[in-house]
Amino acid sequence: MQGTKIDLLINCRWIIPVVPNNQILENCALAIDAERIIGIYPQAEAAKRFDARKIEQLNDHIVMPGLVNAHGHAAMSLLRGYADDLPLRPWLENHIWPAESRHVSEEFVRDGTMLAMAEMIASGTTCFADMYFYHEQIAEAVRHAGMRCQIGFPVLDFATAYGRDADDYIHKGLALNDKYGDQPLLKIACAPHAPYSVSDSAMEKIALYANELDMPIHIHCHETASEIHESLEQYDCRPLQRLRDLGLLLPQTQLVHMTQVDASDISLLQDHNCHVIHCPESNMKLASGQCPVTDLMAVGINVAIGTDGAASNNDLDLFGELKTAALLAKHASQDASALDAHAALRMATINGAAALGWDNEIGSLEAGKSADIIAVKMDSIAMQPLYNPASQLVYCNAGSQVSHSWVAGKPLLNEGQLQTMNHQSLIQAATEWRNKIAN
Amino acid sequence: MQGTKIDLLINCRWIIPVVPNNQILENCALAIDAERIIGIYPQAEAAKRFDARKIEQLNDHIVMPGLVNAHGHAAMSLLRGYADDLPLRPWLENHIWPAESRHVSEEFVRDGTMLAMAEMIASGTTCFADMYFYHEQIAEAVRHAGMRCQIGFPVLDFATAYGRDADDYIHKGLALNDKYGDQPLLKIACAPHAPYSVSDSAMEKIALYANELDMPIHIHCHETASEIHESLEQYDCRPLQRLRDLGLLLPQTQLVHMTQVDASDISLLQDHNCHVIHCPESNMKLASGQCPVTDLMAVGINVAIGTDGAASNNDLDLFGELKTAALLAKHASQDASALDAHAALRMATINGAAALGWDNEIGSLEAGKSADIIAVKMDSIAMQPLYNPASQLVYCNAGSQVSHSWVAGKPLLNEGQLQTMNHQSLIQAATEWRNKIAN
Repeated sequence: MQGTKIDLLINCRWIIPVVPNNQILENCALAIDAERIIGIYPQAEAAKRFDARKIEQLNDHIVMPGLVNAHGHAAMSLLRGYADDLPLRPWLENHIWPAESRHVSEEFVRDGTMLAMAEMIASGTTCFADMYFYHEQIAEAVRHAGMRCQIGFPVLDFATAYGRDADDYIHKGLALNDKYGDQPLLKIACAPHAPYSVSDSAMEKIALYANELDMPIHIHCHETASEIHESLEQYDCRPLQRLRDLGLLLPQTQLVHMTQVDASDISLLQDHNCHVIHCPESNMKLASGQCPVTDLMAVGINVAIGTDGAASNNDLDLFGELKTAALLAKHASQDASALDAHAALRMATINGAAALGWDNEIGSLEAGKSADIIAVKMDSIAMQPLYNPASQLVYCNAGSQVSHSWVAGKPLLNEGQLQTMNHQSLIQAATEWRNKIAN
Repeated sequence: MQGTKIDLLINCRWIIPVVPNNQILENCALAIDAERIIGIYPQAEAAKRFDARKIEQLNDHIVMPGLVNAHGHAAMSLLRGYADDLPLRPWLENHIWPAESRHVSEEFVRDGTMLAMAEMIASGTTCFADMYFYHEQIAEAVRHAGMRCQIGFPVLDFATAYGRDADDYIHKGLALNDKYGDQPLLKIACAPHAPYSVSDSAMEKIALYANELDMPIHIHCHETASEIHESLEQYDCRPLQRLRDLGLLLPQTQLVHMTQVDASDISLLQDHNCHVIHCPESNMKLASGQCPVTDLMAVGINVAIGTDGAASNNDLDLFGELKTAALLAKHASQDASALDAHAALRMATINGAAALGWDNEIGSLEAGKSADIIAVKMDSIAMQPLYNPASQLVYCNAGSQVSHSWVAGKPLLNEGQLQTMNHQSLIQAATEWRNKIAN
């Protein structure tokens, strides 16, 4: 009797499906067909049940859902290490913004986004939320690379090379949504830069469109203490309260950073079912404070994780970010059991998927979901001995051991080699930009 | 005219000599002969001046002093990930100590130390300070691997498989010093476990021998807040004060952790010229607090860095530890300029050397010092573009890019391959221990 024909069967040492919680399966197989997950089976059963066109034999590997990097500015990878060890405002005002105003262009965004995607794919990310200019370049780069992406079109009160004013940014963003909104691997979000950089009237328009088009809102919020003080002075309320009053706190709202959180903020987040995106390394590097992730999770608020841009991190390795998140959570709460390894892995998978409104498609290895999957090779010296695969993923530099990656069943990484991008061209483009920007 | 015959000339893209401060040399060569550094020269000049028996052409690399991991328990790599996400005392008392009492033996120490050294060499460490049992096994493993090591013999009040009581541990340690004290790559230190686990009378003996033999003292100190409370109750003074009263605060004293520091502690550290070893990842993971490194450095106290054992980290990658140290220093001091990349690199090189009393030999690339050197290949996607080599080393996962390592001129790593140890035997031994310990 012949087995059912399927596209791909992955036999592997361990599977962490993420849903259900805390589960680690040994010596199972993951069956994939027509871009989707069929199910997880004992290897002997899978061998009988399926006739796979391709079989991957991953004997030293953990297979798990691809990681979701829920906040970043991919193109800023071209400014990685350009200005370090500086506080947020002088870093932005004296270094990053001037460099951006001199150099950001369609070419910058295309090359920077490609470089960032290569780094993300190689370290286990399959889906990312981006916020930057020249969205068409981002959309085309993402389609070329084959990643899954929420592209946030920024809205600002002031002019940049890309837009004149808030209305112009919104107009361009809606055009982007018209053009790419139905692509299965793309999602368009409205990304007002921050409460302090967008006026009430623009915010109200954003709320209108977000409601009408069921569009995610992605916004930097409560990143620093001074943001709170300035809002209290100018608006007589905290920024989150102002967003509520303007109608921006929706179930599809993603609040990035949230290093300053009091009881009133927690109530608002709960009442409106908003999502929080934690960026621990960027927050620590810019000395902005820390998001109280365990307090938020304890009351049921969904917390995802992002690297932020490479200019303030300086890498896009989400496994490394998870280690920092776990260490920081324990440190901040003075509780070594806070944010354990499985909870950290959920932040970077199912929580990220939920924040982007994509948890029906990705974030776990459940039957029917899209085949967005990674494999991590666990045979390095630095991962021995291996008692607990989840611990090893979070605490032992797993980002450098990612071997395979698929998005909707399509291979993006195979035995550590990029499948949709050319390594040498990426290096060459980055070097050319370096020579232009540094001089 | 023939150049001077030397053993090795390393031509490289960048050199960070660490001394003088903040210097980055481009397209220079490092000349090495008879295990020692001759000097740094422009490549053209070096080519004329020297006739090298071997030339390394490292065109994409940074060459710098080998890293000094100033605190760890190498053999505990066999307990990596064995018990995670637990507070210090239950972690020790319910998991680590019972596992140690069942399994620690000469073989455990030999295999665990070898595994740890392989990981350290591959990620850029050439010198480490160790504290564990069965010192002869450690000494022989270190000699086999060719690393530089300060072996601390622990002293405890209670019995273990290795010793009966404090006198017995001291006796064994002094015998170790007699046997290995004159080995150029080894240094023997006395390592009383912690103020709370060693009695006054044993401490006084240790002070006596440390003074007489000019022996370093290496001790866990002020690791947790409860250690302070208990000392105040039992001895009516803080642990550091008690060490002072017992004569243990010497210029060769290395105080590990120091997460609890007040003004009186700072005065004692200054008055006695003691060294502090910062272990940020272990302190965060066990939620023990943090060492105020920038406050200490501001008043001239020497601060080095260590990974601690792999059971509480869970890796021995000192470059990763530097990133955490830099992020934590900025976070804790609310100053993004705190512990900049060069300052972090000094912590892991010259400060570590000074803490171990080895700064006449290692810690910088100065003429006359031992050729303890590493090269890091800077051509990965995640390191592009490269504006500032020091930033890239600290913030961009340099530990996974280390390509070469020499100790006293002898190669330990070449093109990423271990030269003195067998990769497959290490993996096999670790797997066998895992099967024994997990069941």
